[in-house]
Amino acid sequence: MSEYLHDEPVVPRTDDEKEKLMNRLKRIEGQVRGIQNMVEEDRYCVDILVQISAIQSALKNVGFSVTERHINHCVTDAIQKGEGDETIQELMDVLKQFSK
Amino acid sequence: MSEYLHDEPVVPRTDDEKEKLMNRLKRIEGQVRGIQNMVEEDRYCVDILVQISAIQSALKNVGFSVTERHINHCVTDAIQKGEGDETIQELMDVLKQFSK
Amino acid sequence: MSEYLHDEPVVPRTDDEKEKLMNRLKRIEGQVRGIQNMVEEDRYCVDILVQISAIQSALKNVGFSVTERHINHCVTDAIQKGEGDETIQELMDVLKQFSK
Amino acid sequence: MSEYLHDEPVVPRTDDEKEKLMNRLKRIEGQVRGIQNMVEEDRYCVDILVQISAIQSALKNVGFSVTERHINHCVTDAIQKGEGDETIQELMDVLKQFSK
Repeated sequence: MSEYLHDEPVVPRTDDEKEKLMNRLKRIEGQVRGIQNMVEEDRYCVDILVQISAIQSALKNVGFSVTERHINHCVTDAIQKGEGDETIQELMDVLKQFSK
Repeated sequence: MSEYLHDEPVVPRTDDEKEKLMNRLKRIEGQVRGIQNMVEEDRYCVDILVQISAIQSALKNVGFSVTERHINHCVTDAIQKGEGDETIQELMDVLKQFSK
Repeated sequence: MSEYLHDEPVVPRTDDEKEKLMNRLKRIEGQVRGIQNMVEEDRYCVDILVQISAIQSALKNVGFSVTERHINHCVTDAIQKGEGDETIQELMDVLKQFSK
Repeated sequence: MSEYLHDEPVVPRTDDEKEKLMNRLKRIEGQVRGIQNMVEEDRYCVDILVQISAIQSALKNVGFSVTERHINHCVTDAIQKGEGDETIQELMDVLKQFSK
């Protein structure tokens, strides 16, 4: 049993949605490997830090896209069924964690 | 010519330092691939968001380690040579970017 | 005309809700004045920074309370009326700003 | 005995430095009171959230100014005296707290 209210979104992601998310995540994966190369090449610390913050901002944007879709589908669905409370609480918990 | 004050740290990273950083970055790379799998499996949004925030905190900690080493070596070296101003300004710029 | 979708919440805040928010904001106001005293007394930088981060976290928590109430009332109301899109977009915009 | 390495900066803040910090903190105090008025007037949640994030960014900038001065004076002084380690550790601890 998942610790979350659902195992998957109430409306499945379309192939197009999946592809867009995957492209962004593949780019982030590439950026992480880029930093590994910088460490191997013993690159300057500030240069590495700038790359890390670029990844953080890319990740944050992916997070906001996932959040927006979640509210548009799962939260909206729960509210329309009159079951919004739990889903909103779950959303708030993850927003707080996401903002640390 | 790099846009930074140096191309590499004033004191080269030891193999041990490199290995520790690489292990953390490899783990982060694995976590990013883990999220890609979650997207492929169309996993629940909140579950994905929790994984994204785990990567953000791991990345932030790598950033702090790089920052600490930078201050201990490059910033300290510049200060001891009486050339601290530029290096401190560079440090502040990257701290501000890193905190966005 | 306000730049926002509404001038006030769809469900007015109760006196009790207002009082709770005001108490937290009064405390934050007192903390800001406390830092002013520290500056007057020329207190150590790190001491001041710790107080600033205490205010940031208190403010963040006030923000989350306001966000939660907003989702529970204004966003829920809009979704129930089938007008969720605009309200959700407005929510995402403010979440992004709030996370900078 | 303070829990910090010093009770005050190694180089006292000038009156001009103090005045600048105080002006910024007075403005922030005014912004906090502004939000109190918005709560009294039961203003729209998103409007309040935007004001909270304006204060957060003003506070963050004050924090960066205090940090920069700290590095330029207290940290630099400790490094020049060959006592940098403790001061750098203290700096890293507060940077981590400040970034939560």
